[in-house]
This record gives sequence, C-alpha cells and structure tokens, in this order.
Amino acid sequence: MVAPILNQRDLEFMLYEYLDAESLTSRARYADHNRETFQAAIDTGRTVAEKYLLPIRGKVDRNEPQFDGKRVSMIPEIKTATDAIIDSGLAFPSADYDSGGMQLPLIVASAASGYLSAAGSTTVGYISLTVANCNTLEAHASAELVNQWVAPMREGRFMGTMAMTEPGAGSGLADLTTSAVPADDGSYRITGSKIYISGGDHELSENIVHLVLARVKGAPKGVKGISLFLVPKFLLNDDGSLGERNDVWLAGLFHKMGGRGQTSCAMSFGEQGGAVGYLIGEENKGLAYMFHMMNEARIMVGTGAAVTALTGYQYSLDYAKERPQGRLPSCKDPHSPPVNIIEHADVKRMLLAQKAFAEGAYALCLYGAQLNDDEKTAPDQSERERASLLLDFLTPIIKSWPSEYGPRANSLAIQVLGGAGYINEHPVEMFYRDNRLNPIHEGTYGIQSIDLLARKVPMQQMAGYRACLQEIAETCAEAGGDAVLAPFATQLETSLEVVQRTTDTLLGAMAGGSIDLALANSVKYLELFGNVVVAWVWLRQGLAAQRGLQASPASGLHPDEESFYRGKLQALKYFYRFELPKIDAWANLLCALDDTTYSTEAAWL
Amino acid sequence: MVAPILNQRDLEFMLYEYLDAESLTSRARYADHNRETFQAAIDTGRTVAEKYLLPIRGKVDRNEPQFDGKRVSMIPEIKTATDAIIDSGLAFPSADYDSGGMQLPLIVASAASGYLSAAGSTTVGYISLTVANCNTLEAHASAELVNQWVAPMREGRFMGTMAMTEPGAGSGLADLTTSAVPADDGSYRITGSKIYISGGDHELSENIVHLVLARVKGAPKGVKGISLFLVPKFLLNDDGSLGERNDVWLAGLFHKMGGRGQTSCAMSFGEQGGAVGYLIGEENKGLAYMFHMMNEARIMVGTGAAVTALTGYQYSLDYAKERPQGRLPSCKDPHSPPVNIIEHADVKRMLLAQKAFAEGAYALCLYGAQLNDDEKTAPDQSERERASLLLDFLTPIIKSWPSEYGPRANSLAIQVLGGAGYINEHPVEMFYRDNRLNPIHEGTYGIQSIDLLARKVPMQQMAGYRACLQEIAETCAEAGGDAVLAPFATQLETSLEVVQRTTDTLLGAMAGGSIDLALANSVKYLELFGNVVVAWVWLRQGLAAQRGLQASPASGLHPDEESFYRGKLQALKYFYRFELPKIDAWANLLCALDDTTYSTEAAWL
Repeated sequence: MVAPILNQRDLEFMLYEYLDAESLTSRARYADHNRETFQAAIDTGRTVAEKYLLPIRGKVDRNEPQFDGKRVSMIPEIKTATDAIIDSGLAFPSADYDSGGMQLPLIVASAASGYLSAAGSTTVGYISLTVANCNTLEAHASAELVNQWVAPMREGRFMGTMAMTEPGAGSGLADLTTSAVPADDGSYRITGSKIYISGGDHELSENIVHLVLARVKGAPKGVKGISLFLVPKFLLNDDGSLGERNDVWLAGLFHKMGGRGQTSCAMSFGEQGGAVGYLIGEENKGLAYMFHMMNEARIMVGTGAAVTALTGYQYSLDYAKERPQGRLPSCKDPHSPPVNIIEHADVKRMLLAQKAFAEGAYALCLYGAQLNDDEKTAPDQSERERASLLLDFLTPIIKSWPSEYGPRANSLAIQVLGGAGYINEHPVEMFYRDNRLNPIHEGTYGIQSIDLLARKVPMQQMAGYRACLQEIAETCAEAGGDAVLAPFATQLETSLEVVQRTTDTLLGAMAGGSIDLALANSVKYLELFGNVVVAWVWLRQGLAAQRGLQASPASGLHPDEESFYRGKLQALKYFYRFELPKIDAWANLLCALDDTTYSTEAAWL
Repeated sequence: MVAPILNQRDLEFMLYEYLDAESLTSRARYADHNRETFQAAIDTGRTVAEKYLLPIRGKVDRNEPQFDGKRVSMIPEIKTATDAIIDSGLAFPSADYDSGGMQLPLIVASAASGYLSAAGSTTVGYISLTVANCNTLEAHASAELVNQWVAPMREGRFMGTMAMTEPGAGSGLADLTTSAVPADDGSYRITGSKIYISGGDHELSENIVHLVLARVKGAPKGVKGISLFLVPKFLLNDDGSLGERNDVWLAGLFHKMGGRGQTSCAMSFGEQGGAVGYLIGEENKGLAYMFHMMNEARIMVGTGAAVTALTGYQYSLDYAKERPQGRLPSCKDPHSPPVNIIEHADVKRMLLAQKAFAEGAYALCLYGAQLNDDEKTAPDQSERERASLLLDFLTPIIKSWPSEYGPRANSLAIQVLGGAGYINEHPVEMFYRDNRLNPIHEGTYGIQSIDLLARKVPMQQMAGYRACLQEIAETCAEAGGDAVLAPFATQLETSLEVVQRTTDTLLGAMAGGSIDLALANSVKYLELFGNVVVAWVWLRQGLAAQRGLQASPASGLHPDEESFYRGKLQALKYFYRFELPKIDAWANLLCALDDTTYSTEAAWL
C-alpha cells in the first residue's frame, strides 16, 4: 500500500476549522467560488500528484539531469509532469480569470499545490519559480515587458528563474559584480557569472526568462547600486516568436545532495559581448524588486519544507501502523506476538513530534497565505494594512521555522523506519536530503534571524511586532475560557512575557550601540520567537479541535472524528510540554547578552 | 588547499594532556612503547589516510558497488586502500605482537585509525567489522575455530561480518527465525535470510566470515534460544586452503543514503539445503557472545560519528577562514572590503558548536578507549574491575551521544558553507549523509536509551551509575579550585543533582510498577545524562587547558599554543552556556512522569 501524500482530513481542518476559507467567498474576487470549487481544485492537485508525480518520485531523484556541454537532458517524465501541472491550471491557480487563472484564494491554492509539492517538490520547483517571476514582472516591469513575457510563462511555453548569487558574493549581495551597460536601443548588455540558478537551463520550455541582479556601470557601491534585468535565453521577434539565441550560457550543473530533479546551474552572461537585458522598473532599485520575488519565495520555501515534513510524517505513520516488531518493556513473554511499532512509546514520540512540527509549520504557512489573501482582498483598508504588516513581520519566521523543523521531522521519519529509513526503497531518506536545502536558500537561517531582530522587530516603531503579540494575546484570552486549553493559554502568556523581556533587552543593547553583540545570538532569538509563534498556531488549532469535539456531544461524533480532534490536542500538548519549554534556556542566554560566540577569536577555532 | 583531516595538535592534547597516554608505557604490555612509537603509529594513520583514502573519498561515494546477480563490483581503489591499511599494521594495531599486532594501547590505536575513519569511513568499515569479528571469535570460539579463521582475517586474506538483522525482526532479535540444524559431523546447517549485512559480499578478500545469529531447532523462544555460528562464504580444506562454495548467497544490495562505499547486503543462507555453520561457544548463548561484538561495535559507531564530526568541523573551519563575504551588522560602509565569514558571530557560533560537539564526543570516545585499556592492563585488579564497570555503564552514551550530535555538527558544517555545502564539490554533504546511519545501526537511539535506563543504571545495585557520578563529582571538586573553571564546576554539580533527582524518580516509578510509563521518555533521559557526561568531559579538557596555560607564564607561551588552549576553554564555555542548560526542561518532563507520548493512542496519529 502507498501512504497518502497528505492527510485529506487534516487539510479540511486547516482550511475550514482552523481557518475559515468559506468566509472568503463573500469577497468579490472569490464570489464565483464555494466549498465545492475549492474542493475541486484540491482534488485536482491530488489527482495530478498521484498520476504524474508520485510514480516518478524515486526515478527523478536517481536520475539527475545531465549536461554534455551543449544541452541538458533529463528523464522525459519531468516534462510530462510539468505539462500536466500547467494543463491542470494549478501553476497559476490564484491568478485572475482574465489571465487564465482560477482566482482561487491563496490558502486554497496552497492546499492544492501542497499535494504537488509533497509528491514532487523538485519537479514543481520549475513552475513555482516561474510563478514568482511573473508576479515580480507584473508588480514592477513596464506594461511592454509584461505583455511580451508574462503570457507565455502563464501558458507554460516559457519558464522563469531568479539569478542573484555570484561565486564571489554568495549571500553578500552588496558585492555582486555582474555589470550592465546601456545600449542604444534602450536595452542593456549584461556580463557576469551567476551560480546556484535553479532551473537555469533545461528543455522543459521553449524559452527561459532570467531575472538578473546586476550593476549599471557607474552605479553606487553596495546594495544601492543594484538593478534588476530581464534576460531571456532567446530574444523575441516583434511578433513574439522566438528570435536569436541570447548571450546566456550554461557553464555547468551543480550536483546537489537533494532536490536532484531540478537543475542547479552556473550561468555565464555575456561571454560573447554581452547578453541583452531589459531593465525592470528603475535603475538602482533592483534589490527592492527582487525582494518582492524573494518574499514570495521565502513563503514558498517555508511551505515546501512544511509539506515535505507532512508527507514524511504520513509515510512513517503508515509504516509504524503496519510493521510488527518487539514487545513493550513490561512484557517478558516471548510467546506473545510482537506489537506494531506504533505501540512503542518512543515511536509514538517520534510520530507525535513529526505531527507537531509538520502540522504546526503548515498551519503557520497557511496563516501566511491567509494574510496574503487579506492583504489583497480584505474588505477593509485597515484590515488589508494590518495583514500586510503581519505578513511582512512574520516572513522570516514563516521561512525559517519550517525549514529548521521540517528536516528534524524528516530525520524522525527515518528513525521510525530504522534501517529501512536509510535506504532508497523508502522515500524518507530523500525527504531528509531534499529538505536540508531549505535553511540555506532564499536567505539562510542566520540571515533570517538578523532580518527578524534588526529589521522586522524595529520597523514602523515596532508596529509589526506589536501586532503579532496582540494576535497571540487575543488567542490566549479566548483559550483561557476553555477548561482543556486554559493551562496552555497560561503557558503561552508567560512565553509572551519572555519574548517581551528578551526583545526589550536586545533592542536596548542595540540602541546603546552594542549592535554586533546584541545580534550575535540572533539565531536563538529566531528560535525563541518561532517556537512561541508556532505554539500560538497550535493553540489556535486546539481551539478549532475543541469546537469540533463540542459541536455535537462526544457520543454523537464518529469515532474517527473524535480521534482526529484528540490527535490535534495531543500534538498541541506535545508541543507545549516538549518544545515550548526550551525557550527559557534561550531567553536566559539572550537576556544575559551572552558573549561566548561574539568574543570568540578566529585563532581559537 | 585541502583541509586537514584531523587537527594534529588536538590529538596530541587529547592523548597527552586530557588523557595521560605516556603513563601507559609503564605497564608490561606497552613496555616497548614510548611517545615516539605512539606518534609513529599516528603518523602512519595520517599518511595512509592522505595517500589512499582522501583522494578517493568523493569517488567512493559517487560509485556505489554494483551487483549483476552474480558478482559484486566496485572501484578498484577500495581494495588498494584496504590492502594498504592492512599492510600498514593499522587494521589490528592493538593486537598482540605474537598475532602480528603492534600491542598499542587502544587510545593510541583510536587516534591512528581516527585518521582512516575520518578520511574514508566506509572503506575502513570493511576492516573494522573484521576486527570485531576476530575479537569475538577469540573471546568465545573454540581454539580450533580461532586457529582456522582468525589468522587469515588478521592477514587480510579473509574479512568478517556480523549477521543479525532479519527482514521480519529488525531490532526485535527475540523473533529471529534463521534456523540451525545439527549435522552428523558436529557442524550445523543454517537456513534463513539476513538484511543490512555490511560487507556481506564483495571481492576485497578471498573469503568472508559471517557471524550469524540463528535458532537451533527446538531451542526456547525469545532471546534465550539464540545461538551464534560462524558461516563462511567458502569452506576450508583441511590444509586451510579455500574449499567448496558454502550455501551463502547475496540476494541483493541495498542503496543507502550514505556510507555508499560499503556494501549493505541481503543475504540468503541455505537456499540449496543449508549453509555449513560452526557453533561458537555453547548453544543458546549466542546473544551474549554477539553482545561482545556489539559492545565493541557500539564504541566504534560512537567513535566513527565523532571523527566524522571532527573532520567536517576542520573542513568548514578552513572554508570560513578563507571565504570573504558580507560585513558585520554594525558596518554600513559598502566601500569597506568584505570580511572572511569566520568574523560573523553566527558563523563563529556554528564553528564553536561543531567544536563543542565533535571534540566533546571524541574526548568521550577516547575515555571509553582508555577504560578499555584499563580493563585489560591496569595494574590493580580493582582498577580493572572499575574500568570494566564504567565502560559497561557508559556504552549506551558513548554510542549515542556522538551519533546524535555528530550529524548535528555535520549539518552546521553544511550551513557554514551555505549553498556550497549542499553540493558535492565539498564533502560536508557526504559527511551529513554518512553520519545519519549512526543513530540507527548497532542499536537505535531509542534502544540505547532503554538500555541505559532499564539495564545499565540499575545493574549491580547501581554500581556503574554511582561510579560514573563519583568520577564526575571528583572532577568538579578539582575544577572548583581553579578560578576560571569554578563556575563551570558549580554548574556541573547542580546538573549532577538534576541527574540524581531524575533517576530516583524514574527508578521509583519503575519499582512501583509503572515500567512502560517510566520508560516512555527514556530518550530524554539519555539526552540529559549524555549532556551531563559530555559537560564533564569538557570540564576535564578545561582542566588540561588550564594546566597548559599555566605551565609557563602566558607571555612565554607561543601565541598558537595560547590560542589553542583559549579555544578549548571557549568551547567548554559554549557547551555550558548553550547546551547544558537544556537538561532542565528534560528533567522537568521526566520528573513529572509526563505521559504525553505514553497516553497517545495510535488512532490519534
């Protein structure tokens, strides 16, 4: 038997009980939708995943794309799958009807594409980058560029990338050296090298649209001199048909530990005199535009990490339910039959931890998608602004927490399977390898932690920070009225005080000039804040579970339904007992402005 | 430049400052040795590693052995390397001179073979299993079997395996079904299937000697009916030359996430009527004999995990010292040059954590090797007994702590390199994959935790437990007299009280009949105890570092030496500030007899 990709019941809970997806249908943009159309989209996601992605999951991993110096080749099933996704409409499910989209709320789109991502994250990667590319163009490029390039990407004829990283600069974008020289026709000539370009070359589409960060000759140093260019693999003729090959070349493929189906490319721009590039928006504002794409990509990364954790959990859960082995410690009778391993307390721990990590992470990401929906479509201006503020504030946490705890969940999935988890007869070792990229790309864990503490907390006189704490406090107040949840609400309130005390200490130190010292342990601050936010998300799930249990008398609930809600409450309890208490040790460290890392000299290492 | 495999200065510190390897030369067994002969053995290890293992490290990983249904093929460099190791004498460095060994103390042997294992753990795996196989035979098999089989293994003509796991039983050895039927000639006929047999088939040696757990027909059920057999690939003629092919067959190779150079085999015994097997020792005592091998293997696993962490640390440290990127948060001048990433506080954190994990783990494993030396050669009977007791007690921690923290260190090595850490141009992603096996094989993490809490703590009226705590308390007393170390000594003393309180609570609950509940969180007990033991090992390193700093006035120390000792003290501080405080959360959970995992019903998951 094949384990389910995702738990359908849990998705319904997430959308309709934890969130209130149905209420969105009262908004004009979603007026044609209802629970049935939502379900149809999700069913399509599952069907495409089961038909095109799940069967090739192992094969994609074992057959890395190859580059013979001229062309990239890969197993043909990848193109079949990307075509199927595009044909299904799930590449751009939330786009306008006018652009061929389904105008789905992002929370529903996220659930539908969650199936795709869980069953074939690397194959889906080609498409999700294309989507982010289109969104960036629509937000910042001229109408002319949008008209030329976005439609063929929406149709799946072209695909897109983001090309930021350079061999000499890495995360230090301030030092990037790719140059752009204005040409007479208003375009630019781009010269430079980029690395780790996902989907940088392939033959899945007729053309590839690179969004490239480069520096116009004479621009200021640092991040204030960076511009964004559209640099295609093939130029277009006036009628939109493919024209000349542009001066953009694949220099080589990287061989990654995971995500092996998606090419990771070293790209060379301008080897033959300069690649034709088109300026997006204004010169020297490229980084801000790229952050549009990057913020979207960061939510995508978090969501990908979460669904990889979810699907690993489902797989190891299925295995644990069917695999007999050993007896309980109290059983000394060798004649008794072995129990299924799910009966062992430590296996329960590993499953419960996975559930707490994966469903907590996914609930957080869906909350982010809801904020994105609200930012665009909430009826009230102030609601839209508040959603935008909260999303901006939470982005480093939505990116990082799933990226840190997703791989931990996948490691536990391996451990549940034991030796079987370490071999490629089962996909859990692949999930573990795939997911390890997520704390690295689109801003490392360390970079997210500095973004949170040095930028997002202080921004707008701490408005985002305060809004976040207020949301949490409101949930605590609500849960305080429920006898089962009240102890958790109290614990979370105490945790909020810990966050505040820690934040005050660190901002005070920064205001006092100890910027580097205060930021030295920013990763611990991110972990602390992340755990509190996920504890909050779990308390909200707990409220929904209690509503489910109380909707009809327990005797009237189907036993499966009761078990489902009990599982939610147990995962909540796990998180509050096993994970949330860790924040005290981190808070002590942070509030003491511990200088252990800061004061370490390079020569001591 | 190639990063050093291991830090030579640190090895010297471990052997001569943290431990006192030179004092061993006063024992009769080691009378011919001195610091120069020790160094010669270690130099040999480094030379062989640099010449035969390091150059093929990536190639071994990328070229998994293949099975065409008849023969196993692998890149020939593996045999060249195993032959070189055998020729160097480092396969059996601690064996008697009479058997062709060097009679080296295990702590020195461990340092020498540490180089081999760090540079090529999977290649070395073929040999270390052979060593454990020989040791088990010498301890439990008849003189006749030892004479026939051990010498060719010592010469490298034969290699050995341990064959325990079965498809239907896994860790549940009580349920293994491989059967043994006595034959007229005193041998047995073995029939059954075994999986995950490392080195189960290959052509690196003329013959392969399997130690196989099987059940003699009519034996009791459970672990009390298990016997141990020697089952060779080829039988021997009376003159010791290779005879008939035995009825032992490779059914297939598993494809592992890491450790890819070493075959992992599904073996079939007795497809053609029964494989010839020779009973080792007495019937039904097989598990005890196998534990001889397994205890040795557990220390080996811990040591392997530690050195993989050490070498990953060296690699990422080198990278961080040479890679310029970004500026400190306080620097707003884009004209200033980028700093090397080792200047970033979060990179320091990741390096310091690796140092604390890897050197702490390795110091623990070397202490285990010292106990093994003392068990065999300490002049005093009571000293030998105490060493034996401590080693027995600490084995689950020596196996588990490095296996848990080694992969964490390797994950941090990836993170230091960023995107470069995720691709196979650098070996850190391989270390991460290789090391992930260690919490699984030779008894999973969960099994070790039950071994510790349910067996090792209560054994002999808690004699091992008390001896361990006494050792720790003595170090605390000594360190309490040093102004720099006193605060750490106080913290460790408090931690010892936490261990005692937690242990009393759990043993009380078990005595009261709540066995399954008390054991439900045994993994947290293992983590708690493990962190305290490693904190102790770090305090002992701190004492040695203080001695080093004080040996001559600081002004007289070479700056490199002073930096080395400061680094030790800083890693100690890191461990006490960042890692040791975690035990409080675990102790609270354990002392409350938290039933979250225990009370979780399978249907809730």
